[in-house]
Amino acid sequence: MAKYKKLTKDMVDKLQEIVGVRNLIYNNKGKLETYSHDEVDDEQYAGMPEVVVKPNNSEQISKIMKFANHENVPVTPRGAGSGLSGGAVPVEGGIVLSLDRMDKIIEIDEANLVAVVEPGVITNDINELIAEKGLFYAGYPMSVESCFIGGNVAENAGGGRAVKYGVTGRYILGLEMVTPEGDIIELGGKRVKDVVGYDLVKLMVGSEGTLGIFTKIIIKLLPLPQYTVNLLVLYEDIEKAIKQVPPILTESKTLPTAIEFMDKESVMLVYKYLNEHLPLKGANGMLLIELDGNDEEVIEKAYHEIGDKCLSNGALEVYVADSATTRERVWRIRRNIPEAIQTYSECKSSEDIVVPIANIPDFLIKSREIASDHCVDIYCFGHAGDGNIHSTIVKRSEMERSEWESKLEKTRNRIFEETIKMGGTISGEHGIGNKRKKYLKNIMNPATIELMRRVKLAFDPNNILNPGKIFETNKNG
Amino acid sequence: MAKYKKLTKDMVDKLQEIVGVRNLIYNNKGKLETYSHDEVDDEQYAGMPEVVVKPNNSEQISKIMKFANHENVPVTPRGAGSGLSGGAVPVEGGIVLSLDRMDKIIEIDEANLVAVVEPGVITNDINELIAEKGLFYAGYPMSVESCFIGGNVAENAGGGRAVKYGVTGRYILGLEMVTPEGDIIELGGKRVKDVVGYDLVKLMVGSEGTLGIFTKIIIKLLPLPQYTVNLLVLYEDIEKAIKQVPPILTESKTLPTAIEFMDKESVMLVYKYLNEHLPLKGANGMLLIELDGNDEEVIEKAYHEIGDKCLSNGALEVYVADSATTRERVWRIRRNIPEAIQTYSECKSSEDIVVPIANIPDFLIKSREIASDHCVDIYCFGHAGDGNIHSTIVKRSEMERSEWESKLEKTRNRIFEETIKMGGTISGEHGIGNKRKKYLKNIMNPATIELMRRVKLAFDPNNILNPGKIFETNKNG
Repeated sequence: MAKYKKLTKDMVDKLQEIVGVRNLIYNNKGKLETYSHDEVDDEQYAGMPEVVVKPNNSEQISKIMKFANHENVPVTPRGAGSGLSGGAVPVEGGIVLSLDRMDKIIEIDEANLVAVVEPGVITNDINELIAEKGLFYAGYPMSVESCFIGGNVAENAGGGRAVKYGVTGRYILGLEMVTPEGDIIELGGKRVKDVVGYDLVKLMVGSEGTLGIFTKIIIKLLPLPQYTVNLLVLYEDIEKAIKQVPPILTESKTLPTAIEFMDKESVMLVYKYLNEHLPLKGANGMLLIELDGNDEEVIEKAYHEIGDKCLSNGALEVYVADSATTRERVWRIRRNIPEAIQTYSECKSSEDIVVPIANIPDFLIKSREIASDHCVDIYCFGHAGDGNIHSTIVKRSEMERSEWESKLEKTRNRIFEETIKMGGTISGEHGIGNKRKKYLKNIMNPATIELMRRVKLAFDPNNILNPGKIFETNKNG
Repeated sequence: MAKYKKLTKDMVDKLQEIVGVRNLIYNNKGKLETYSHDEVDDEQYAGMPEVVVKPNNSEQISKIMKFANHENVPVTPRGAGSGLSGGAVPVEGGIVLSLDRMDKIIEIDEANLVAVVEPGVITNDINELIAEKGLFYAGYPMSVESCFIGGNVAENAGGGRAVKYGVTGRYILGLEMVTPEGDIIELGGKRVKDVVGYDLVKLMVGSEGTLGIFTKIIIKLLPLPQYTVNLLVLYEDIEKAIKQVPPILTESKTLPTAIEFMDKESVMLVYKYLNEHLPLKGANGMLLIELDGNDEEVIEKAYHEIGDKCLSNGALEVYVADSATTRERVWRIRRNIPEAIQTYSECKSSEDIVVPIANIPDFLIKSREIASDHCVDIYCFGHAGDGNIHSTIVKRSEMERSEWESKLEKTRNRIFEETIKMGGTISGEHGIGNKRKKYLKNIMNPATIELMRRVKLAFDPNNILNPGKIFETNKNG
């Protein structure tokens, strides 16, 4: 395959004809820089675009893709840029195709319990709009107030309600998308069942913007549960906290919506960041458990049952948050951990481990061992109820920066090794992107990776859509 | 591409070396005939295999696939043969690879709420085994006592609990499979979240045995609900019955497990078949509604609420079935409709329409119109709560057989046309197979079909695995 072409002024003019002069950024380093990274805080995963285009309909996107295919120029689609794997970074330069002008909620179809939205809609805006109709969309990524629904689909975002409701993919019934070759196609529809041909909707979910660009998304809605309660459970013994998770999942009469875990280190940092003062009472770990449903008594019985179980298994205290205000207060703590770590830690890497639920306690114990072996901190927090822990490796202040890169690499390798031994994997919801692609061979055999490469080429024969992600594509290599 | 080779005696000997002399059928027309069709009752969709092999592990399957690839011989995998789209029929001859010896339940992992099973396990056997542990697998195809779990995954079987629990795919966490080229690969695992690379597990679900042969299946289990109740609701006015379905879905505090619909014609036939005498009281249509959960009071409240709603909207009668015996009695009626129609109807075609839930009433009205226009009967029954209706087109006794084929074709075309107009599609759970492939172009644009073809070739470059299904492959054409 030929190497990618660099964009000439003529080519940029053609793109400008498609999207209009105001919707293109070129020759402006400051503005282009914004599109050179996502939320991954490490320069090695960044990459500058040559041009940014902001189409506002599928016909424009189709034209851009046909043009890029013809000219052999890479295109990297971008949502809110809130990703955590470098998925939206134009590692080969070329065109960044920003979807932030495709931000319309096209239809709320109450009779069919579906919404049709464009990819640049902020996920939270959907729920704000439909709450008054007694409906909700069950996806709840932690960056819910900034992330776009298109990015959620591209990454198969998990988030804070997956224990009960599952992840994004469960709610995606249909897609309109532009293929890498520029065809506009429709997949699925307003149907809860569909087995006609291969399930390309499900294949697109989590394909990290490498197989097509979504232009419309049909999402399934649910009736909004009428009662929601949160428990914030404090433990002195962090192992007792995490050991409580599997039995809650297997034994509770009412399946919780969420079981989140936070260690003391994460909590202290976020308290500082938010100026929060909820009493810690000597706790070294916390569970944040959510229950929802339509019957107040059932929810009450369930949270008492779970709370009592926690207390008789070593919890120090159980706080009940049953008003919208107190619930938001505890979730705000959980949601802001990544930002707090980002703010106060000079060097860090956020991981996205997932293990079988029965192995969560073992994983936590191993993490502490690994941290101690390598003289780094590993903050642990995340979606314990899904076995998905955001182990965040952080440089201790006493470590020299020159030592950090190699320590990080060794720590991460050990964490991944132990994860794989436990039947786990290296990403539960953030994706591979360019950040984790070199580890793919550790967890997949060559035949599987080869199948994925062929699927990529089936969609994108010239490898121009978001190249350099998930696996090596070697076009410029 | 070269045409497929016919199997020679030498080639059969090589297959015999792989699976053993007792696990191969050759030169025995009577025995081979069993493998020439599934439950589709129409000779035009049948096809004779040249040889049937019955491997019992993934290594044998790998050898068979490598051999078939090398020799250019088609291979058609087969589970219980209970399919309804001709998916397991060897339309190009060659090898039928029967999975009925791969029937082991390998592991019940209670701590992780998963089971690991081979593809030839009867779906019902899983639930029988795990019920005593307080667990269940939520898939519930209507042929639950005969179908294999492998076939359920290959077709993404829907069945009788999908309103609340979703279809088969939701419960498939991992697969071991043999690729068409003979590689043994593992996809997914005992993890509830996983975004590493493309979601090939979900792509395999519903791929109709055209992309790989499952050898192990990791399924997610749930705690067995402690209370289950069924309502059998009779309506004189069939439209009132079906119009009740959408509001139950959108307005009920407790989402039902199932909402099944049966018209009088289906019920009369199944009564005769089963020698059943539940009073009909002038009913022309029935809803069978199931509710389950862990709180007896909640379930009781919910079924009273739904029952009252039905009665105030024109139901004649609501029977409550809350014991295992009575529940089985009503479900037995529903499950046996296809067999009853099969037994008493000389000529028929069972369809698998799915429409957006709000359009179910319109679809039923249209069906009756189409039946009357073409002088055929259309029995309607199925999973109304999913918008999935098994319209079964039946020849009236007064119609000459010579007229039937063209009437069937016209009726089916009209049904499909109306379905597509309503935003529906032609299969909700039975699949395309060879029975429906000529209609694919009516519901998908050429670019989408071309993508699917390329995905097929990405997995199966020589097009030897289950050729002639879903879309035309033209190798022998």
